[in-house]
Amino acid sequence: MMPTSTRVPHRVFGTSSSGNCHKVRMTLDILGVPYRWHEIDITKGETRTPEYLAMNPSGQVPLLQIDDHTWLPESNAIMCYLADGTHLWSGDRLQRARALQWMFFEQYSHEPCIAVARFIRTFLRQPDHPRLPELEKRGYQALDVMETHLSRAPFFAGEFSIADIALFAYTHKADEGGFELTAYPLVHAWLARCLAQPGTSEMPAPTA
Amino acid sequence: MMPTSTRVPHRVFGTSSSGNCHKVRMTLDILGVPYRWHEIDITKGETRTPEYLAMNPSGQVPLLQIDDHTWLPESNAIMCYLADGTHLWSGDRLQRARALQWMFFEQYSHEPCIAVARFIRTFLRQPDHPRLPELEKRGYQALDVMETHLSRAPFFAGEFSIADIALFAYTHKADEGGFELTAYPLVHAWLARCLAQPGTSEMPAPTA
Repeated sequence: MMPTSTRVPHRVFGTSSSGNCHKVRMTLDILGVPYRWHEIDITKGETRTPEYLAMNPSGQVPLLQIDDHTWLPESNAIMCYLADGTHLWSGDRLQRARALQWMFFEQYSHEPCIAVARFIRTFLRQPDHPRLPELEKRGYQALDVMETHLSRAPFFAGEFSIADIALFAYTHKADEGGFELTAYPLVHAWLARCLAQPGTSEMPAPTA
Repeated sequence: MMPTSTRVPHRVFGTSSSGNCHKVRMTLDILGVPYRWHEIDITKGETRTPEYLAMNPSGQVPLLQIDDHTWLPESNAIMCYLADGTHLWSGDRLQRARALQWMFFEQYSHEPCIAVARFIRTFLRQPDHPRLPELEKRGYQALDVMETHLSRAPFFAGEFSIADIALFAYTHKADEGGFELTAYPLVHAWLARCLAQPGTSEMPAPTA
């Protein structure tokens, strides 16, 4: 059966400076899947219109449009959908679950600290925001867990996979959230290994 | 090939009154997979010992021990591992990604509000905690998204699946977090459909 993606190009509703959206862009680029990118400006309420909420009741980006009547939200679920059956999500059921382990870690323990700190500093421009100290403490805990893992393996779930893409997205711009990575040499080296993968790219900075 | 689970019983490190742990228990019970449950008391620091952190550097429950040298953390990843190839995570790649969509929704938009509010009210016993108003607002937003979905389908990803188990865990005890479900008749009916599945069970209340 031909993959859906070769029949009708996927459409992505996304914000280029969002790590969650950048994950989807990189997965498509790495897999060489054609797509059309529809840039969404969340600051203009473009995810709160009735049309957008009809496609995604959660009102979030990214959103993958698969056909005229089918949409898939949640960045990490989109990556699983796109990578299913490819080298980006391979191996036995344990290795595939390992990728999910790190993707759930990313959404629960990493993104809510490191991405939110970046949002507060670069979008809201509030360097004295009262939540920042707690976010930084928990963000460094997530980086500690990553550094420990990388002392035992070059990637997060066997070969380079969607787990690495998910963690790469906000880690490679952690400095924009106020995080200093010099104490994390293994994370630093892993970021370079990720960037060496064809199709991987740096995320653009938010515009004011 | 025989499934691993029929050779050596899985061991689960979990706290019975934790929804994330209850998900794993229900998945094993529904699938009829034998397991040994090792009760963990997080209030006694049992997830912070060197022995526990060697098994799970994140220091969280639940944790699935697959063999003497293999552990898998993250409740939703454990469910995917256990349910891979079974009726609890079936269908084409889109339907499987739909289950993941709701499981990532659960960990990002549902659990951090509804489970944390329950933790504050029942474990910490702090009904005047300053975070509760914001957690309740966002928790009700998550319930709104669920109610909207359930107006179109009886379950979250086709047939009853791990997505339903993930969302059931904290939703059926949302009242312990201070959430009132009377305004959510479709969620209420879905909870009853979940409880009618053999192997599904109610989670015990936290002990003081």
